[in-house]
Amino acid sequence: MDFSKKHILDIASLAPEEINFILDTAEALKEVLSRPIPKVPTLRGKLVAHLFFEPSTRTRLSFEKAAKVLSADVFNFTARMSSVEKGESLIDTVLNIQAMGADLFVIRHPNAGAPHLIAEHVKTRVINAGDGFNAHPTQALLDLLTVREKKGSFKGLKVAIIGDIRHSRVAHSGICAFCKMGAEVFVSGPATMLPPEREALGARVCYHLEEALKDADVVMALRVQKERHGRALFPSVREYARHFGLNTERLALAKDDCILMHPGPINWGVELHPELEKDPRNVILEQVTNGVAVRMALLVLLLGGGA
Amino acid sequence: MDFSKKHILDIASLAPEEINFILDTAEALKEVLSRPIPKVPTLRGKLVAHLFFEPSTRTRLSFEKAAKVLSADVFNFTARMSSVEKGESLIDTVLNIQAMGADLFVIRHPNAGAPHLIAEHVKTRVINAGDGFNAHPTQALLDLLTVREKKGSFKGLKVAIIGDIRHSRVAHSGICAFCKMGAEVFVSGPATMLPPEREALGARVCYHLEEALKDADVVMALRVQKERHGRALFPSVREYARHFGLNTERLALAKDDCILMHPGPINWGVELHPELEKDPRNVILEQVTNGVAVRMALLVLLLGGGA
Amino acid sequence: MDFSKKHILDIASLAPEEINFILDTAEALKEVLSRPIPKVPTLRGKLVAHLFFEPSTRTRLSFEKAAKVLSADVFNFTARMSSVEKGESLIDTVLNIQAMGADLFVIRHPNAGAPHLIAEHVKTRVINAGDGFNAHPTQALLDLLTVREKKGSFKGLKVAIIGDIRHSRVAHSGICAFCKMGAEVFVSGPATMLPPEREALGARVCYHLEEALKDADVVMALRVQKERHGRALFPSVREYARHFGLNTERLALAKDDCILMHPGPINWGVELHPELEKDPRNVILEQVTNGVAVRMALLVLLLGGGA
Repeated sequence: MDFSKKHILDIASLAPEEINFILDTAEALKEVLSRPIPKVPTLRGKLVAHLFFEPSTRTRLSFEKAAKVLSADVFNFTARMSSVEKGESLIDTVLNIQAMGADLFVIRHPNAGAPHLIAEHVKTRVINAGDGFNAHPTQALLDLLTVREKKGSFKGLKVAIIGDIRHSRVAHSGICAFCKMGAEVFVSGPATMLPPEREALGARVCYHLEEALKDADVVMALRVQKERHGRALFPSVREYARHFGLNTERLALAKDDCILMHPGPINWGVELHPELEKDPRNVILEQVTNGVAVRMALLVLLLGGGA
Repeated sequence: MDFSKKHILDIASLAPEEINFILDTAEALKEVLSRPIPKVPTLRGKLVAHLFFEPSTRTRLSFEKAAKVLSADVFNFTARMSSVEKGESLIDTVLNIQAMGADLFVIRHPNAGAPHLIAEHVKTRVINAGDGFNAHPTQALLDLLTVREKKGSFKGLKVAIIGDIRHSRVAHSGICAFCKMGAEVFVSGPATMLPPEREALGARVCYHLEEALKDADVVMALRVQKERHGRALFPSVREYARHFGLNTERLALAKDDCILMHPGPINWGVELHPELEKDPRNVILEQVTNGVAVRMALLVLLLGGGA
Repeated sequence: MDFSKKHILDIASLAPEEINFILDTAEALKEVLSRPIPKVPTLRGKLVAHLFFEPSTRTRLSFEKAAKVLSADVFNFTARMSSVEKGESLIDTVLNIQAMGADLFVIRHPNAGAPHLIAEHVKTRVINAGDGFNAHPTQALLDLLTVREKKGSFKGLKVAIIGDIRHSRVAHSGICAFCKMGAEVFVSGPATMLPPEREALGARVCYHLEEALKDADVVMALRVQKERHGRALFPSVREYARHFGLNTERLALAKDDCILMHPGPINWGVELHPELEKDPRNVILEQVTNGVAVRMALLVLLLGGGA
């Protein structure tokens, strides 16, 4: 399967067999991470340019770790330090960095569609690391990898996604990914945060939290994104925590062997009760490690190195 | 030719044969950039310290790429994150970084002469990456390399530089470089942006744009530096675009085989009409690639590795 | 001596023989710094995460140089660019970076005890790079290395530390380190900056500068930390310079072969008169080089590579 002419812009444009191939590659590469010297020369001399127009810790560092393990070089470029301050257009910035020798762009941008726009103008590869409310495909892929590791396959699984579905790129990419791989997705949250059924991307919209959680194999809490809302959150953080915050009692509605996921960073006491931090069903930090593996896989596949 | 005790502070202190040697070295090293694995061990273990006291994208990343290709390590130091916030003197900062093992300093500073001052105090090498309104020698060298590639030599060429000549370090270094190599330089722009003849560094000052453009072999548009002017630009951006912005019609005054250059970042619609973006005479992105090659040459020559 | 399960949080928790072993290792590794290619593969594939929640130049770059010499990879993480902006807890941030594969954390934090707190939660190693007013153990170790190089041993040496003893983590770790190794420490400064005797950590508090300086083998001036004081410094900077600033005349009270140290960045004209910049007793830049050597030693010892 040849990814060397592809971009990773969203889940919608990936076929199920492509997703499986990415997950297989990630699984194979993950072994490198536990070696005494976790470094292979696969992408030596390749230059990965990180263009982050929004603050980010985990996604940027995860890509950086993936690049370092594969011996690729990294440009770190943030809006703050950039010619963007001088009013340069996004496309010009990217074309310039391409002319300097970048082989792949990892882009996070507050505007939906920015990575797609860039992909139309460059000869190099593009990975969307989160664009506005739109998509976050590498998050969805690491979620899939985590579920596949724990559950073996996706067919017939019930996946519950709880929180601000309407404004979450993690939810959009996640719903799309789980549905595509054959799972059933149920979403719940405050009515102000739920999409109308016709925009739910194939997920079932549940106005009662219990309906989504009941017998779920996978429970994914979304982050309450206080910083994205221009004004006061509605419902308030306290109301959110009371009505939609997950705790041991609510999680008991799901299957006994369910797993609990969260894209991070977590607001403890809001979307998750602190009692879940050490819960054996919590696989949140395993998601983080899988994030590195998935990003290694994408770098290798897009830059045409052998897996 | 031994550069291992030299600094690159401005074009004025380089002899024509030194410039040719730098360009020859850059041309030879440029081949590395198109290899499948663009990396050579020439400067392994060397530490290049980037000291950027002004925001910069392209120059910093260009030097960073050059260092990575040559396997040198890089310190990225910006005013924002630094002890400069604690009031430390520039010289003390530099002497400290030297004591940590830096082998070469790449300096951008808002004050003219800052790199020269530093060069007097250090045992290591210094490259000026732009100091105030004064000089930007690596930009001039990459301009020369681009012209030499396209035109073969400099003798008798007519070079037109259009824009804010008076306040542009790119113009100052460029005029000096092209004159030194035997080209004739004509400058034009709004009267408020032109130097008096006696300060034109050997360039001919043209109050009529047409006089500068007529039969030019090389046309270089300068960036309108809106962010450098404390108050309103005079003439306004709109007036500038109307009277001095380059477009297909104006470029037709130059020779048919002329090349169009710009140091970037471009304000499209101001100094250049968008119709020139895909024009075959536009070599602006080739300048960017040549910037990496020229900086590789300087790193190799100053740090004494074999070319 | 096995450091592979240890953290370096403060001097108090290190035994004198452990300190000597660290200094021996640093002395041995320092030789690498003067090689033509100052790079060894000792820590290839290891990932050192720098978490700096306060601005810093010299400490961060010193650790970065140490890591690069040993071929380790580095994550640079500053509060500004981080999920901390999204309200993530310090512990969650660290656990996430650990899950991505970091092997060691270097932490600077404005709150005393932050590195200790982190050390309780991680499986990886932690080095305190300065926490509030509390401790700065790597600074103390580089001070010890510098003194041992110049004086041969610590027994019976008189060490004078001058300045804001009460609010200085450098002073706290320094007093503790010199006392532990058998030197006698005398501290002096404005009365508002001196600790009560019972909190002087074994140092002798001198209300007269002359008493501290007289026959000293080592004189260490502390930085006047203007940026740490919410309001006007008392005494003022000018008064401080007049009464406690070191100059040739005052330094003549110390032994003829004394050495003059300062942790940097220096306020010339405040704690040190500019006439001392070229004084042969000034070993301040040698401290900087020794800082790299000490940090190399700690990285090697904690990450279990062979010295």
